[in-house]
Amino acid sequence: MTRFLWPVRVYYEDTDAGGVVYYGNYLRFFERARTEYLRHLGFEQDELRERMGVLLVVRSVNLDFLRPARFNEQLQVSATVETLNKASMVFQQEIFSTSSKENHHGDGEQSVVYCTATATIAAVRATDFRACAVPAEIRTEISRER
Amino acid sequence: MTRFLWPVRVYYEDTDAGGVVYYGNYLRFFERARTEYLRHLGFEQDELRERMGVLLVVRSVNLDFLRPARFNEQLQVSATVETLNKASMVFQQEIFSTSSKENHHGDGEQSVVYCTATATIAAVRATDFRACAVPAEIRTEISRER
Amino acid sequence: MTRFLWPVRVYYEDTDAGGVVYYGNYLRFFERARTEYLRHLGFEQDELRERMGVLLVVRSVNLDFLRPARFNEQLQVSATVETLNKASMVFQQEIFSTSSKENHHGDGEQSVVYCTATATIAAVRATDFRACAVPAEIRTEISRER
Amino acid sequence: MTRFLWPVRVYYEDTDAGGVVYYGNYLRFFERARTEYLRHLGFEQDELRERMGVLLVVRSVNLDFLRPARFNEQLQVSATVETLNKASMVFQQEIFSTSSKENHHGDGEQSVVYCTATATIAAVRATDFRACAVPAEIRTEISRER
Repeated sequence: MTRFLWPVRVYYEDTDAGGVVYYGNYLRFFERARTEYLRHLGFEQDELRERMGVLLVVRSVNLDFLRPARFNEQLQVSATVETLNKASMVFQQEIFSTSSKENHHGDGEQSVVYCTATATIAAVRATDFRACAVPAEIRTEISRER
Repeated sequence: MTRFLWPVRVYYEDTDAGGVVYYGNYLRFFERARTEYLRHLGFEQDELRERMGVLLVVRSVNLDFLRPARFNEQLQVSATVETLNKASMVFQQEIFSTSSKENHHGDGEQSVVYCTATATIAAVRATDFRACAVPAEIRTEISRER
Repeated sequence: MTRFLWPVRVYYEDTDAGGVVYYGNYLRFFERARTEYLRHLGFEQDELRERMGVLLVVRSVNLDFLRPARFNEQLQVSATVETLNKASMVFQQEIFSTSSKENHHGDGEQSVVYCTATATIAAVRATDFRACAVPAEIRTEISRER
Repeated sequence: MTRFLWPVRVYYEDTDAGGVVYYGNYLRFFERARTEYLRHLGFEQDELRERMGVLLVVRSVNLDFLRPARFNEQLQVSATVETLNKASMVFQQEIFSTSSKENHHGDGEQSVVYCTATATIAAVRATDFRACAVPAEIRTEISRER
């Protein structure tokens, strides 16, 4: 399965007084990666809404916070469609860095995972938020990519 | 002129890695106080939009950050309509605390001002964001209050 | 088990262009309720940090988004400690409204649930984010309350 | 004077139920551009804090909201140091797009300005937020660039 990657920089806006990224803001990072993955496939969510009256919404998400990310870090956010159903899809996602600071042994890059998510995304009608089918063209592109 | 007050508690979500309230979040606090002032006068902004097709938007704001507010502080946010025009109004606002911690001289409460704002709010049509008159009933209530 | 309740109003800052509360912002509401529950028990998190060097952080959270909450709604956020371990505790939480708008049948209030969460909170040392025991006085107060 | 540019995409997290960017979030975009400008000059704010004990904070900002930016738009954020003082500096900033959608007359790109800011940034000591001199190496690099 394709693993889409999107870079995210940690700004002051993302952190809290604990000195690390505020726990709710990881959901922003995960959504940016999903949005950019769909854009990469050729889909703009504002056009989906205008042309087809469809919104993609999050039905559920399971988050594990493994390690705090800090101000100014350069992160990578992954997005992989693990399951593709008729009216929904399940993304597996990770936030990690490949910092050379973490590793002084000269044995190459080392990945540090900060947060993981399993997110179920459903298609709904923009007018009343009722469940509907994921547009066929999106399902086709995701299937092709996988 | 009436000075409306609204309490705001500083949560982790409001702070940044500097240990203080993130500078952009004061705009949230100022808006909460303006919204609650209008509610206090009897106006709900969702009803204004549905019933009259009017949104109240911020045209400009001048902010002075005097002193950083910290995690867990209990703040007061003021809202005073200083000028009332046909299509806009100007609010004077302050964020302050009346902490007894600040004063060990036994001479009562002392106000510490963290941030001040002058905000110009304009009425626009929800459909195209074009300027329109502030609804007469709002103007009447604000005038009466003052 | 005691079910602590905290009211939250939906402001513009909480919503997104879908016209509903942004999915990541429910985590803010859940945290406000947990913070106020601890304050209700007598614990201020800034004092815990200064006095004992302890932070309470979220280790994992499972979220179900059942129905979108809209701009200007008055919500209730619950917080119940379901499990109390030595170094962590598990909260069950709900965001709901008891709107009379939902019910025109004259049969009293009806609760509408928007979002539910299971959140595992762990104690860590503020200096290095290493796991530590939940302070005994907090465990005692939570046990007494339950 | 050099005009530094930084691209910003509008995600759902940035918008509100009015369908446009939440007014307080423009301050995030302006700060990202200032941060990236300093990084471009060779300065990382976490290192400034650790190495020199200095934070750069916003003392005041004047914002004009000219036109609402919408979900999914690709924006440009500018940052120009207009005045460089011993303990502070004044940035002129703009948020705009160079959308071809705005112009169907075949006469090239057209810039649409959404928001402008004048921001005064001061250096303070991280320990007590007291004013201090802007580090000489930063002043030198900014002067050279201009």
